[in-house]
Amino acid sequence: MKAPVAPTFGEPGRLTIEELQLATRNHGMPLEALRYPITPTGLHYLLTHYDVPAVDPEPWTLEISGAVVEPVRLSLADLRARSLSRVTVTMECAGNGRAFLDPRPLSQPWLHEAVGTAEWAGVPLSELLDAAGMAAGALEVVFRGLDRGLENGVEQTYERSLTVGEARRPEVLIAIDMNGNPLLPQHGAPARLVVPGWYGMANVKWLSAISVVREPFTGYQQSWSYRLRQDPSETGAPLSRIAAHALMLPPGIPDFFTRDRVVALGPHRLTGRVWSGDQPIDGVDVSFDDGDTWVEATLDPADLGPWAWRSWAFDWIPSRAGRYVLACRARVDQSAETPGRPAWNLGGYANPAPQRIVVTVTDG
Amino acid sequence: MKAPVAPTFGEPGRLTIEELQLATRNHGMPLEALRYPITPTGLHYLLTHYDVPAVDPEPWTLEISGAVVEPVRLSLADLRARSLSRVTVTMECAGNGRAFLDPRPLSQPWLHEAVGTAEWAGVPLSELLDAAGMAAGALEVVFRGLDRGLENGVEQTYERSLTVGEARRPEVLIAIDMNGNPLLPQHGAPARLVVPGWYGMANVKWLSAISVVREPFTGYQQSWSYRLRQDPSETGAPLSRIAAHALMLPPGIPDFFTRDRVVALGPHRLTGRVWSGDQPIDGVDVSFDDGDTWVEATLDPADLGPWAWRSWAFDWIPSRAGRYVLACRARVDQSAETPGRPAWNLGGYANPAPQRIVVTVTDG
Repeated sequence: MKAPVAPTFGEPGRLTIEELQLATRNHGMPLEALRYPITPTGLHYLLTHYDVPAVDPEPWTLEISGAVVEPVRLSLADLRARSLSRVTVTMECAGNGRAFLDPRPLSQPWLHEAVGTAEWAGVPLSELLDAAGMAAGALEVVFRGLDRGLENGVEQTYERSLTVGEARRPEVLIAIDMNGNPLLPQHGAPARLVVPGWYGMANVKWLSAISVVREPFTGYQQSWSYRLRQDPSETGAPLSRIAAHALMLPPGIPDFFTRDRVVALGPHRLTGRVWSGDQPIDGVDVSFDDGDTWVEATLDPADLGPWAWRSWAFDWIPSRAGRYVLACRARVDQSAETPGRPAWNLGGYANPAPQRIVVTVTDG
Repeated sequence: MKAPVAPTFGEPGRLTIEELQLATRNHGMPLEALRYPITPTGLHYLLTHYDVPAVDPEPWTLEISGAVVEPVRLSLADLRARSLSRVTVTMECAGNGRAFLDPRPLSQPWLHEAVGTAEWAGVPLSELLDAAGMAAGALEVVFRGLDRGLENGVEQTYERSLTVGEARRPEVLIAIDMNGNPLLPQHGAPARLVVPGWYGMANVKWLSAISVVREPFTGYQQSWSYRLRQDPSETGAPLSRIAAHALMLPPGIPDFFTRDRVVALGPHRLTGRVWSGDQPIDGVDVSFDDGDTWVEATLDPADLGPWAWRSWAFDWIPSRAGRYVLACRARVDQSAETPGRPAWNLGGYANPAPQRIVVTVTDG
């Protein structure tokens, strides 16, 4: 699919009214919520492309059709009657960090907060695909939501695909519960896809149909959006798994407007979370001088399972009162992230922008 | 209290990084959620001055002291052991609409979405005040939260007061449940004040202490913030009850970025909600020509009780394809709001900015 319109960008440091409309309706996770292993309901990040649709769960069904041996149609009661699997997942929006890019792609202007961790319960997709049976030549599985709108002039229903191999991973669920309760409307009720390790765009909400196809799916959200390109003429690599990312729970107390922090002189236990949907995490480093020097934090075990964030801690004892700039970074594959100017791309994706926390240490 | 610093304003139509930090951490209600009588958990608006505090409910107690006959201290179990009252409340942030002001006060940049309706359950405050007994000269009741931070250089714990008369209104609750579940951390767990009809600032979250005083309370959030003033030298009138405000559920489907709408030619039932914490609602008008002409919508009964929004509807049959600008307004006391340039004030408060929905009606 070609670029429907020429891209435009925001003025550095100045947001447009359209970006504000998105920022006030889409929800970030306030960073103090990094303290909770499971993000409290209502604080998980939320990105809704169009509107949250009104879905009546009673007549709702989910059909699995296309290149299958026998199409399957399930009601919500059918799904709930099955044995549910549970998986704890840290989910992050592919556009997290976009607002730091220069030039800034005009879309949802996330800073650091488009993340959250939930315990999802649902039916493994592989069981449903087995029930339908893959026909010869089955290549991809296309997931269709009930949310409809326009992007760059293209009217569409939200759709994404996975390869059959990816779709059959045992941890991929058709989720009907989140944190022990039925899905809330904004999280995809009555049923959604959960693809542990992938950016949010793969986790299709408000599922209505699953179609097995023999050709690569070329819908808007697959072939145009969510690809890493420098120029609209490129095809670009598709986004998939979440890159390593570390965040720190801002210490002390905040200023309401600037969100800069104040702490008293003395020891402070700094804590945070780190996650990756891709490479294993080797460690976390912290800095107190805006990234000039780094020290290693203590990384906790992966006690929430392989698809969720891990906590880390560092006992900080500032030697003097004054201003510090705190930062943290994930290390994977024996190499550290190098916070600084993030890798620019047209859509503003996969940019774990370095968190920079201004802290004033006071004598009092 | 005098102005701690000289006020500064944002450039028209261009948001600062500080405003974006607030917009991404504070949550608005996506306007399609106007369809729900009770706002689904997680979609109610949320304005957190400082951080959501970490509160252990086990050792937590609430003390009522000061100008009382006998101080009272209650645990969460003590509160839960009492007979709980229920009240359905539409709550709105006093700063809703601030981002439309020119010059724009630098604070949380709300457009229209800082609203939500919840069913709260809790102990009537009047019962607890009766248990403590008012001492001679008792004038106001001061509510202290557990949230601490700085505003304009003033370090503080969030505190607000009500007159004894207002505090004793039967519908004022120490709420411990929201929508049938214990309060979530971000909504003030373990207990918060709910003052039906008042703007959000009065509904103190994370309550730790209630103090009856004999002098008017002059804390920052009472004497400096949340007052209607044109200049920092003025005392200004305090904010209290919510002004009449109507919103429309945006019809049709949205464009992802502009949020402009597309509907097909044909009849459309427009719906919305209207509320006021102050004067009774007389009616709702809608416009299809950006406020040049108005027609009356059908107002539903107040079936959620006296403190919650009412729904309204209008059957719109556009006569031609093309572009329309839809608007709605509340009527109180036989006079209509006059949408247009809102009344400016230094804090950007009590500005029910007229909603303006750009709709393209298509032939197809």
